[in-house]
Amino acid sequence: MNGLLTDLYELTMAAGYFETGKADEQATFEYSFRRLPANRNFLLSAGLAQVVDYLLNLRFCGEEIDYLRGLTQFRRAPEAFFDYLHCFRFTGDLFAVPEGTPLVAGEPVLAIRAPIIEAQIPETYVLSAIAFQTSIATKAARCVETARGRAVIEFGTRRAHTPEAGVLGARAAYIGGCAGTSNTLAGFRFGIPVMGTAAHSWVMAFTSETEAFRQLQRVLGEAAVQLIDTYDTLEGARRAASLGKPGWGVRLDSGDFLSLSREVRAILDGAGLRDARIMASGDLDEYRIRELMRDGAPIDAFGVGTQLATSADAPALSAIYKMVELDIQGIKRYTAKFSEDKASLPGVKQIFREAERDVVARAGECGRGEALLRPTILRGRLVEDLPSVEDARRRAAESLAQLPAHLRELETAERGWPVFHSRELRELIGRTRQNLTP
Amino acid sequence: MNGLLTDLYELTMAAGYFETGKADEQATFEYSFRRLPANRNFLLSAGLAQVVDYLLNLRFCGEEIDYLRGLTQFRRAPEAFFDYLHCFRFTGDLFAVPEGTPLVAGEPVLAIRAPIIEAQIPETYVLSAIAFQTSIATKAARCVETARGRAVIEFGTRRAHTPEAGVLGARAAYIGGCAGTSNTLAGFRFGIPVMGTAAHSWVMAFTSETEAFRQLQRVLGEAAVQLIDTYDTLEGARRAASLGKPGWGVRLDSGDFLSLSREVRAILDGAGLRDARIMASGDLDEYRIRELMRDGAPIDAFGVGTQLATSADAPALSAIYKMVELDIQGIKRYTAKFSEDKASLPGVKQIFREAERDVVARAGECGRGEALLRPTILRGRLVEDLPSVEDARRRAAESLAQLPAHLRELETAERGWPVFHSRELRELIGRTRQNLTP
Repeated sequence: MNGLLTDLYELTMAAGYFETGKADEQATFEYSFRRLPANRNFLLSAGLAQVVDYLLNLRFCGEEIDYLRGLTQFRRAPEAFFDYLHCFRFTGDLFAVPEGTPLVAGEPVLAIRAPIIEAQIPETYVLSAIAFQTSIATKAARCVETARGRAVIEFGTRRAHTPEAGVLGARAAYIGGCAGTSNTLAGFRFGIPVMGTAAHSWVMAFTSETEAFRQLQRVLGEAAVQLIDTYDTLEGARRAASLGKPGWGVRLDSGDFLSLSREVRAILDGAGLRDARIMASGDLDEYRIRELMRDGAPIDAFGVGTQLATSADAPALSAIYKMVELDIQGIKRYTAKFSEDKASLPGVKQIFREAERDVVARAGECGRGEALLRPTILRGRLVEDLPSVEDARRRAAESLAQLPAHLRELETAERGWPVFHSRELRELIGRTRQNLTP
Repeated sequence: MNGLLTDLYELTMAAGYFETGKADEQATFEYSFRRLPANRNFLLSAGLAQVVDYLLNLRFCGEEIDYLRGLTQFRRAPEAFFDYLHCFRFTGDLFAVPEGTPLVAGEPVLAIRAPIIEAQIPETYVLSAIAFQTSIATKAARCVETARGRAVIEFGTRRAHTPEAGVLGARAAYIGGCAGTSNTLAGFRFGIPVMGTAAHSWVMAFTSETEAFRQLQRVLGEAAVQLIDTYDTLEGARRAASLGKPGWGVRLDSGDFLSLSREVRAILDGAGLRDARIMASGDLDEYRIRELMRDGAPIDAFGVGTQLATSADAPALSAIYKMVELDIQGIKRYTAKFSEDKASLPGVKQIFREAERDVVARAGECGRGEALLRPTILRGRLVEDLPSVEDARRRAAESLAQLPAHLRELETAERGWPVFHSRELRELIGRTRQNLTP
């Protein structure tokens, strides 16, 4: 069961809403990013499939309820609350931007409308699931953009924050445009292409490097990628070249990739292996790839690990999940937060994507362009099958291609993607700010 | 099943070892950190319990094996290899440093000795599981050290890289000395104290802030922590104070913590609530805590989220898992890697911790001080129950207290913890370097 996979305060608030007679009030919470991290001109949304899965399966089992019953924080909670948890199901609505959509700060990624307890409990899970995959998909898109058609492969599971993060990071990286992943379980679960080479231990397990290369070639045939830096990269390249075909090519994993790739290319070409390819891995990110591409390094594929799997230069996003509307017996109350630097905007919203700007409007308004937030779960049921990972990846590629070129650069653009508020939304913000006499 | 939770190349190498008749060769792999991240003078080991769990349950189910069979990379693999996977069990040995032990670069955290396939496949999982929890435990220890006795509470699940990373991060943070976590599942699974307050949505769900505070007090009694910054922090403090007891105190979540904590302290004291406590949360890390402590901010508890849950200034560690010995029908071969900046040392090792230094020796040598690597799994069976999370936390506190004070500072010390190699180890390194004619 996944009911306890949340912050304790979501559950104590749930008990509080229950006790104060608020369980039937309908609340809407919206998810958005407060600001873009440094050097990001967009965030590529991902993780929705995991949120849907979570909401459809949100339950509390007896053992978990007993655990809560034993905590001081629930000492005063009535038995009826625990009965309520026992029967808990998510019965509300989820509106969401499809995975693979670039967004900027202040735009709603999703909205959950449900009885207040059902909308409150998912906060922690939803914040983590969307922000993590979004950060990785974004990082992947940056690497892929910079590699201009050369393959970028996600190699970072070993650096991911738990092995499970490796699986979901691989998923997000694929949505962001990576050609595949080394993570086998991601291949099994999501149908993502899996790729791999061999490790230094393979080379060391044989009495000579040549023997290790020969055996790998025998076992993997055309899929063999020889790792040539265990002892000496150029010597390794010569040994690999001496064996001829079959084989995919070689992998560089240390040293100066620019000069080594040139020398290794010459060795392979000299041996008549013009089809043999060169992969580089080790401390790569979008900036290193850009340098190597600028300098014309003959590298055919980039294996990106640590920096991608942890989104190392922006390992956390400023995601928020804020109540924007409360519906008490048919009377709507708009809610917002006006604390310093941490404001949130009232009312349920829609994003209309036009050719050169987004307009954030109130839900229900008519607008031009594509309405990005779509009904995904209604009354606790999935409206239709979610787009596949392949669909999300295609959507990402198409949407990113339509972004102005300066927003696809690696540094923060002087002029970001423009987002306007509709007149109705501006009026609601003004009214709410006035009315909120705390 | 968890067999596919690894990089594809571990499995293609497994097939290769199988086909080349190496399945019975005994290999030993050692785990260590290449270097300490910036501003770290030690890394506090954590994550071993998850590694043990993984090894004892490592299996491949039929569906997973069928998936592998369908991949191009296994096109040439013999049917006997898939039969082998079907019966796969980890039958080897694990030697490991107990959780809660501070280590430095180049020291073995664990060693796996097993038939080469069984030692190879765990690489990816083990690298991720240990490095992640170690990075969080270390970050927590830094925050706790700096808070000098004030409580540090882990609040970061929403920023963790997947909700599961939130659970295991909470575990690691507790080992590192945090007083508790907001993660309910971590409480349920590991018995860690869980703590929580209320969110802005709670305050916004009521028609007035005072009403929200009154209701929270009614529901939570002495456990009530009033969040006072939804509209105006000082006004919020006055409203909370006007309600008197019972209650834990208040939480600041935005603004200038130094001045606000002083003003709020005065408001609480003025209302006769000298026992009421002040918690601060929002963009805290060990550096901010140090500033607030230096300035004498009257803050009783620090809720640390983003920076702790992602180890944001060091989101990845340079962990390696390298083959150090190979035993082919009783003949030992020592293995090492001498590539640029990425060397590894041959031979199975032990760490002897003396009062003011560590000596890394060959396994089997006698040494002074505590031998840190202990037999944990032998022939596929757990030797004895692992220490509890509480035990690991206690070990961490005791070990850190014994470190020289300058190594507990937040910046890199001029002189790190000294690590020496024993004479026997130095001789082995020299011999291996000479003999390794690739």
